[in-house]
Amino acid sequence: MDAHEGHRLQREKLDQLPALLRETDIDCWLVWVRETIQTPDPVLPAVLGADLVWPSALLFTASGERIAIVGTYDADVVPAELYDRVVPYAEGMADLLRAELDRIAPRTIGIDESRNDSGADGLTVGMKALLVDMLAATPHATKLVSAERLIGGLRGRKSPYEQTRIRDAVRITEGIFDDLDSFLAVGQTEIEIQGFVHGRMAELGVGFAWQAASNPAVDAGPNKPFGHGGPSDNRTKRGHLLHFDFGVQSGGYSSDLQRMYFFGAESEIPSEVRHAFQAVRDAIRLAADVLQPGVRGRDVDAVARQHVIDRGYPPFAHALGHQVGRYAHDGGTLLGPAWERYGDSPNGMVEAGNVFTLELHVPTEAYGQVSLEEDVLVTETGCEFLSHPQRALRCIAS
Amino acid sequence: MDAHEGHRLQREKLDQLPALLRETDIDCWLVWVRETIQTPDPVLPAVLGADLVWPSALLFTASGERIAIVGTYDADVVPAELYDRVVPYAEGMADLLRAELDRIAPRTIGIDESRNDSGADGLTVGMKALLVDMLAATPHATKLVSAERLIGGLRGRKSPYEQTRIRDAVRITEGIFDDLDSFLAVGQTEIEIQGFVHGRMAELGVGFAWQAASNPAVDAGPNKPFGHGGPSDNRTKRGHLLHFDFGVQSGGYSSDLQRMYFFGAESEIPSEVRHAFQAVRDAIRLAADVLQPGVRGRDVDAVARQHVIDRGYPPFAHALGHQVGRYAHDGGTLLGPAWERYGDSPNGMVEAGNVFTLELHVPTEAYGQVSLEEDVLVTETGCEFLSHPQRALRCIAS
Repeated sequence: MDAHEGHRLQREKLDQLPALLRETDIDCWLVWVRETIQTPDPVLPAVLGADLVWPSALLFTASGERIAIVGTYDADVVPAELYDRVVPYAEGMADLLRAELDRIAPRTIGIDESRNDSGADGLTVGMKALLVDMLAATPHATKLVSAERLIGGLRGRKSPYEQTRIRDAVRITEGIFDDLDSFLAVGQTEIEIQGFVHGRMAELGVGFAWQAASNPAVDAGPNKPFGHGGPSDNRTKRGHLLHFDFGVQSGGYSSDLQRMYFFGAESEIPSEVRHAFQAVRDAIRLAADVLQPGVRGRDVDAVARQHVIDRGYPPFAHALGHQVGRYAHDGGTLLGPAWERYGDSPNGMVEAGNVFTLELHVPTEAYGQVSLEEDVLVTETGCEFLSHPQRALRCIAS
Repeated sequence: MDAHEGHRLQREKLDQLPALLRETDIDCWLVWVRETIQTPDPVLPAVLGADLVWPSALLFTASGERIAIVGTYDADVVPAELYDRVVPYAEGMADLLRAELDRIAPRTIGIDESRNDSGADGLTVGMKALLVDMLAATPHATKLVSAERLIGGLRGRKSPYEQTRIRDAVRITEGIFDDLDSFLAVGQTEIEIQGFVHGRMAELGVGFAWQAASNPAVDAGPNKPFGHGGPSDNRTKRGHLLHFDFGVQSGGYSSDLQRMYFFGAESEIPSEVRHAFQAVRDAIRLAADVLQPGVRGRDVDAVARQHVIDRGYPPFAHALGHQVGRYAHDGGTLLGPAWERYGDSPNGMVEAGNVFTLELHVPTEAYGQVSLEEDVLVTETGCEFLSHPQRALRCIAS
């Protein structure tokens, strides 16, 4: 992404902030970071688009003010067009931060800590301790609150720029699946197939939405648990299934899709596989039917989960959907069950502009798992599929 | 870096752990992470070399045991050759973690929090809160201590694999400076010069030790404050200086060097510049003379700082040296003054195997700043220059 495009993103995201601050009852949002190449705060690309070395305080007020207190050597990475004031410091910044907060006089100060949402949990324990020390014996010490809902909204409500980038990433991913239709044949290993995809990605100049070793995940035949592991020398066989979990990163944004192939004619698909495929496909469609602003994440998960149970399958051991953005797993509200490891994220409300995956699998006795994943954009009244939902197994006749 | 080489790194680093745990009086080190693509813990490359999605606990004991409690979908990214046991979980891991800790029965549990060292501060506030909740009402709740010294030692004591990678990065960087000797001419812009370096880096297939926009920093002529900002259309001129701050990343490890050029014959160097250059060069040499295991970081900084003061210059507004490793700024003990923003890091002890920069600048009235930076490896008895220290201004006659 070039600098101009980058600033377009940050301008759109920073413009969302005043309304989000008021909605979440945060008078001032404080992004407090250092050495962000090592310990990046996931919000930084949206509000700065650069890395900072020294301890740095980025302040955003409900009235729309934007202030950056940064080390002298970092001052010229802060785009002047994005910030009202850049305040550089040499030896220490505690006095400068206290003075800005005294002037702003916020009732609440949002900081980047969250049990539920890793995307809103960029503040480290040591940095929080330094902040608490700096604010001790000031009226601001008791004002710190989690900016979780603010950050969830900021990341979750994709701006026009972000929506375009995600559409691009999905389109490129689907294009590579189309290329696979011609490439795939009986007798190839998973490793060979992944190599073909990596070659196409290099030709297209796109990056990986998650680590290359398991992207795409390629699972040939039965008896292979799906996961984030890498491909093996398992070979495609006539009568077997082939599964992909694949996401690219393009222009800084990600896609995340799963697709299923069958080696043989459409008429040769075993009824057990056909039944499983329909259950998965229809569960995604039913979930999409209820996905709209204002619904709770867990209630969307429950629709798909109930459908596979009704069709005679065990429920899947993961959430139905996560948000997609810069990262394949973009944090915020989750379309998931209320399990310990998901924290409070399945209780969040779906919002217009959110991009979610819808993904699940069911087992078969003899053919392994059948698993699909689509990407959808929540609109004002429902949702739009960004991917072309897989309607039938892609059959490789040879 | 291929998987095999990666495991060589992790084997070497994990082998350092039992002694480091005993030295720092930590019975069990707990690396507690989630979604590490978004919120990476800087220690992860050394102890795992992969990314984890679900909340994950990596446990290392003073007796040498290594256990990974990870989500089912993450289980196969944990190299079996590195860990004694991989414990997968589906819905939640609290019971599994408590059971492991009950069995280990540590007196102290080190966690990745640090005010002073960003490289030892990978634990986020939300993750700490989740950990404290899981351990509440167990005997382990009161055992949590900072693993700052442990991590500082682990990252700072470069293993043979790491030393080789850093030597490679320095050699490549010096090679590009040699290429610049032939390329540079009067009348080029900073942007053009940076473009040449980026082209050479692409041809050599090496990455950036910090963000590309300011790597290399290229500063032509006087009246330009050095910093992390990008190059401008300032042009090189006869009689002017040219400054570079440049680091590559190769095989996962970084270099960080500064070099100074003069446009004109050696005999034309103004005496003011000559005097400044000698002060900087000699300050680095004097600091290297006292750099050895057991000396405090601040005491090395003080030697160079005093030398420039003695030579009639104001002291530089930054630390003399930081550690270099995976990152150009690799955390741990700092060769710096006892300023607020450096926390406790200048009070740390230098150890054999540390790699430091030695860098400083002095101003001139008419020619801008004169600044140099070298990379050195601390040995058992002193230090070794990994770079060839710049002895004289590199003169471009044309």
